[in-house]
Amino acid sequence: MSEPISVHVEDSELLLLTDLYQLTMLEAYWQEAMHERATFSLFFRKLPTTRRFMLACGQQHAAALVSQLRFTSAMLERLAATGRFQPGFLDWLAEWRFSGDIWTLPEGTPVFPNEPLMEVDAPIAEAQLIESLIMNLVQLETVLASKAVRVVMAARGHPVVDFGLRRMHGVDAALRGVRAYRTAGLAGTSNVLGGLRHDLPLSGTMAHSYILAHDSETEAFHAFARHFPGTTLLVDTHDTLDGVKQVIELLRQEPELRVDAIRLDSGDLGELARGSRQLLDAAGLERIKIIVSSGLDEHKIAALLDQSAPIDAFGVGTQMGVSADAPVLDLSYKLVEYAGTPRVKHSTGKVNLPGRKQLLRRTSADGSYLGDVITRRDERIDGAEPLLVPLIRDGKLDEALMADADRARERVAAALNRLPDRLRRLAPREADDDYPVELSPALQQLVDSR
Amino acid sequence: MSEPISVHVEDSELLLLTDLYQLTMLEAYWQEAMHERATFSLFFRKLPTTRRFMLACGQQHAAALVSQLRFTSAMLERLAATGRFQPGFLDWLAEWRFSGDIWTLPEGTPVFPNEPLMEVDAPIAEAQLIESLIMNLVQLETVLASKAVRVVMAARGHPVVDFGLRRMHGVDAALRGVRAYRTAGLAGTSNVLGGLRHDLPLSGTMAHSYILAHDSETEAFHAFARHFPGTTLLVDTHDTLDGVKQVIELLRQEPELRVDAIRLDSGDLGELARGSRQLLDAAGLERIKIIVSSGLDEHKIAALLDQSAPIDAFGVGTQMGVSADAPVLDLSYKLVEYAGTPRVKHSTGKVNLPGRKQLLRRTSADGSYLGDVITRRDERIDGAEPLLVPLIRDGKLDEALMADADRARERVAAALNRLPDRLRRLAPREADDDYPVELSPALQQLVDSR
Repeated sequence: MSEPISVHVEDSELLLLTDLYQLTMLEAYWQEAMHERATFSLFFRKLPTTRRFMLACGQQHAAALVSQLRFTSAMLERLAATGRFQPGFLDWLAEWRFSGDIWTLPEGTPVFPNEPLMEVDAPIAEAQLIESLIMNLVQLETVLASKAVRVVMAARGHPVVDFGLRRMHGVDAALRGVRAYRTAGLAGTSNVLGGLRHDLPLSGTMAHSYILAHDSETEAFHAFARHFPGTTLLVDTHDTLDGVKQVIELLRQEPELRVDAIRLDSGDLGELARGSRQLLDAAGLERIKIIVSSGLDEHKIAALLDQSAPIDAFGVGTQMGVSADAPVLDLSYKLVEYAGTPRVKHSTGKVNLPGRKQLLRRTSADGSYLGDVITRRDERIDGAEPLLVPLIRDGKLDEALMADADRARERVAAALNRLPDRLRRLAPREADDDYPVELSPALQQLVDSR
Repeated sequence: MSEPISVHVEDSELLLLTDLYQLTMLEAYWQEAMHERATFSLFFRKLPTTRRFMLACGQQHAAALVSQLRFTSAMLERLAATGRFQPGFLDWLAEWRFSGDIWTLPEGTPVFPNEPLMEVDAPIAEAQLIESLIMNLVQLETVLASKAVRVVMAARGHPVVDFGLRRMHGVDAALRGVRAYRTAGLAGTSNVLGGLRHDLPLSGTMAHSYILAHDSETEAFHAFARHFPGTTLLVDTHDTLDGVKQVIELLRQEPELRVDAIRLDSGDLGELARGSRQLLDAAGLERIKIIVSSGLDEHKIAALLDQSAPIDAFGVGTQMGVSADAPVLDLSYKLVEYAGTPRVKHSTGKVNLPGRKQLLRRTSADGSYLGDVITRRDERIDGAEPLLVPLIRDGKLDEALMADADRARERVAAALNRLPDRLRRLAPREADDDYPVELSPALQQLVDSR
């Protein structure tokens, strides 16, 4: 076999999950004895047209992870075998550890164009090497959480359950995606390993294959309800309303069976939910809930609820699992300071903010967000909360800040009530929907001076 | 800390990377003593409008992987701790292994709607459990390879290098994505761990941050070219053509330096490539190549080559990394036979093909693909090649077939020449662009009888 049959990934391999040029540049820095401190800033320039804000997610996990990483001898041997690097450089890499500071937004913070999600202050070889890894890790969770929170808003308090494992991009997306979904406010996941790892309740019942493997739908319902009191039965394998009638007849014949819900997975979900509800209610089964799935996204959910479809919960997979309408975010990780001097790339039509920065958020007396100010790192403004916190200091994780970080789900729930109404709308953005983000006079002066 | 700071994944955890309902159904099958053999078929119903074919990819790796999996005692303890499962069932899971057969298309086979990519024949509990995992694994590589091969076709023989690590959906996507890219025909990758694991040459040079960390562009070019003879210099940090002039001046002053290429990463790439080429040629530096990157996809590459832009190679990231125009495929894994009886879900407007099947591809005398016939498993047609091969038999990997599987890259290169011209066009599909896929009379008869 020419390649391993495995998806195994060790954390210790992650320093090699980098673009080759990071290592090439590190060797150059090593040869040039460029060991001064640098600051890199992580931000995005544009919102996708179908997002009114992004939820910053994954950055604390990424920061905590990189602060633990070291090159193992096995990794250095793999690099040596490429023949691309000098032995002295590889010896130096053996000593590599992250000794700098990482400032991050708390996970679950709504974030807007040009605002720093993270700033990394460290000797340049440390801050440079982790670029590709941090971008990969943060982009995944930010993209998925930012889609999922729209689905949660659309569901207006009805539980949303993740069914996306099979459609997400690989193993890590399926696992850390559940972490993003927990932050975004989903009620549960069908994904066993994801839910166990990232503490989101498991949910799930039966597939069409279970029905088809039995000689009849009724036989399958009977067996499943007997094994799993309080279960959900999937009623649309052949004809949805006929499936509901079979559930009703089963419960009439064997009233000791307990069925808590039915699931509809095809057809006109609004119409079928209404028909199912009528049949169930007429049979005195008002307590049986209706769960729907099948190609749902935030717009379809909102449309179902707008027509008052009697639906209790939503299972959402494909569209949410890859954030299909906006699967990518144009995250940048840019050098903004080296050896104490602010630096910036001059690109036509692009904002590049030099120097170490802070993000301040102004709120009204009732806590509503009024707008943000990007400032130099140490500026403060009365009544505006500084959002970047130093999660890593001198390479060490601040445990208290990290514990606070774990309250991302609560932070999102609170933030949704604090966002201006127009930012919670689901329609694509229009020109006047922008959230106010300004630069402080001191930062503007620095920009102008570069 | 409430959660581990890690992205570590063990292969042995993968049986838990499943939807909860798979385990629930397994417990029901166990209680009902339903241990008969089942066949599940993996296929998709529709091509994305921006794809004319998909490249089946990942299915051999997935099949080989699942044939190795077992429940570990640690996993069974995690399941027991959920309180959802009976101890007798968990004891039975401890004995779970895949003992069946898996038929797959060779990786890199062009595939069309309703055609089986895989068929799994096994006791129902074995074939059912692996559904979610197989779909997750195959969808990732198939989606990414199917996008990447379009980029390769657009580049008309010019090398394409993967720059997508930072924008792909997490760690596994970035690693197995490189595997898909190798199959699709990319020339290299910037992704170190991905390239080392999956045997694609590494490629990469410098970022803007390296230039900015120096006091001037020329100083950065000089240092880098001195360290890395034969390197590529990134010339667009401030002004592209000015950057090219600095490279020329540097080589005039120090002719012993070796620069093999320049990279342009912003602006009007066609115009800047022409301008750069003229400057280089006028200086007698015809041998220096021009590499471009920055938001490329197959359409932008084709447009650049249509205007005869003097570009030697393309670096492609974001759009290819998530297959942004078609990030998801509607893969299905459906029960088609149980206990020797073909089964099928009757859905309005959907094709569901019962029973064990084979896929035959008709070719002309010169090897061109004429069309496909989906048949019952054992049918054969003169002049049509059966494409599904039994990679796993009785739970064991066929090493010879697997070795052949590793020639996926060569298979793709050959297949591109055998596809009808209209399928290699990059524009969205039109109604009459469909490739002919028919059912054999025997399969049609079975469909009609259900």
